[in-house]
Amino acid sequence: MRQWDSVAIIGVGLIGASIGLALKKRGLAQRIIGIGRNAPRLQEACDQGAVTEIFTDMDRGVADAQLIVVCTPVGHIASHVRQAAAASAPTALLTDAGSTKSQICRELAATPELVARFVGSHPMAGSEKSGARHGRADLFVDRVTVVTPSQDDSPDLTSQIEDFWRSLGSRVLRMTPAAHDAAVAAVSHAPHVIASVLAAATPDEHLALAGSGWGDTTRVAAGDAELWRQIVLQNRQPILRTLDEFTAMLAQFRAALDAEDGQQIAHLLEVGKRRRDAFAREAREKRSS
Amino acid sequence: MRQWDSVAIIGVGLIGASIGLALKKRGLAQRIIGIGRNAPRLQEACDQGAVTEIFTDMDRGVADAQLIVVCTPVGHIASHVRQAAAASAPTALLTDAGSTKSQICRELAATPELVARFVGSHPMAGSEKSGARHGRADLFVDRVTVVTPSQDDSPDLTSQIEDFWRSLGSRVLRMTPAAHDAAVAAVSHAPHVIASVLAAATPDEHLALAGSGWGDTTRVAAGDAELWRQIVLQNRQPILRTLDEFTAMLAQFRAALDAEDGQQIAHLLEVGKRRRDAFAREAREKRSS
Repeated sequence: MRQWDSVAIIGVGLIGASIGLALKKRGLAQRIIGIGRNAPRLQEACDQGAVTEIFTDMDRGVADAQLIVVCTPVGHIASHVRQAAAASAPTALLTDAGSTKSQICRELAATPELVARFVGSHPMAGSEKSGARHGRADLFVDRVTVVTPSQDDSPDLTSQIEDFWRSLGSRVLRMTPAAHDAAVAAVSHAPHVIASVLAAATPDEHLALAGSGWGDTTRVAAGDAELWRQIVLQNRQPILRTLDEFTAMLAQFRAALDAEDGQQIAHLLEVGKRRRDAFAREAREKRSS
Repeated sequence: MRQWDSVAIIGVGLIGASIGLALKKRGLAQRIIGIGRNAPRLQEACDQGAVTEIFTDMDRGVADAQLIVVCTPVGHIASHVRQAAAASAPTALLTDAGSTKSQICRELAATPELVARFVGSHPMAGSEKSGARHGRADLFVDRVTVVTPSQDDSPDLTSQIEDFWRSLGSRVLRMTPAAHDAAVAAVSHAPHVIASVLAAATPDEHLALAGSGWGDTTRVAAGDAELWRQIVLQNRQPILRTLDEFTAMLAQFRAALDAEDGQQIAHLLEVGKRRRDAFAREAREKRSS
């Protein structure tokens, strides 16, 4: 596993701080440089040991870095990658931790000097909690990180970025940006929208009766609204497609219920249960393997 | 708190077994009679200490009971209450544990001899797990049980049934059957349908990327499909209304996303977050009080 003299982390929230904590705990980097606009927040990340030094000036922060990981909200990633690339050594590698990939990778593929230096990543280890104080050194352990090379990216660069995530304990899947975005629209972004709308649509006066069922179904709706605004805008088309498939199936259920068609209702409930049970089974197998 | 010589529990699944375990642990009943069709399953409930004796013949099982709690699936509750009432002493009280109330209470209110003996209940302590083996003596502690007297029910009868649930550790809310059904449609039944349809609509090939977010949002979809078929059919109108409100708000979100209206997207995400945060705050306060 590669040891780095210096890794720069741009954006020290939940993911950025967890990367720093994992690098330090595993002894993988001498210097871990935290970069952000908010000095008190950077200081907090430093105090908890997630980074060894901090900069509010990105250009100075990345100057000596061998690896730069951009962990800012998805709407800012492409411009931060471009700025960091321009200010760092031409040999410095770059990746990101954004929940969307097509738009970011497409924008950056248009910058020829980045082709040999940037590969997109998405560590699937988020939480409805945000902020460095929720960071954990083991956040990536046994979680999937998707790495999304564009057609022109060098296989060697891709391997180095994949090895980086593996060195933090993550499992790595390689996918195209488009395949990644379709998959996360289905299992993360559209479910987030649905959970959020369900929470928003529940009348206050009924909330007193809400229990753990409602609480679990809507848990992700507690996520940061601004982060999610950027995510859904960046992955608009795949999310719209998933919402349309969901809405069509919900309309089927509604029609069956309206018609008191017990057989069709049972069928739809059983399909949902089978899919959910398959997920639980796989999760158990992953844990025990 | 009233001590009972004999309590009969019809249907010894998760809820029925938990009632038996709670009665025994708290020393509230001499005899706890488990009644069901499936002898091996009854024996299992007896072996784990949830009941002290078992009957597959309901008429014999309820003969000496002072209190009869019907914990069968909602589609069977009204007929089981009627049968149990006819086979038991005229002084025996009856309640149920069904997730829907209007249809059951309406059916039973039409039986004059039940007016002085039956009041409907809904202990809101379910789980996606079913079966006596998941029963727990503390299942009802600090959870809400809704008791739903019909207009003609005597206040004394209602108080006795409320005291019974309190004696198991539950908090009690009194509501009309219609108000109960509207509230649980909003916080439980419609969310169940939405979670189930979301699980069913997620393509198998994307499931590998599903994480704890998808897992939580769809958790309740693992519930027993036949139980839920009966529940949604019994609470059809309130669920249809809730689904229509949800669908209208989801269509708003979809339109905002289609139009790349970031302001409206942010607004809807924030409303969802506020509602979810309020729920989490109330849950914390309940735990600490």
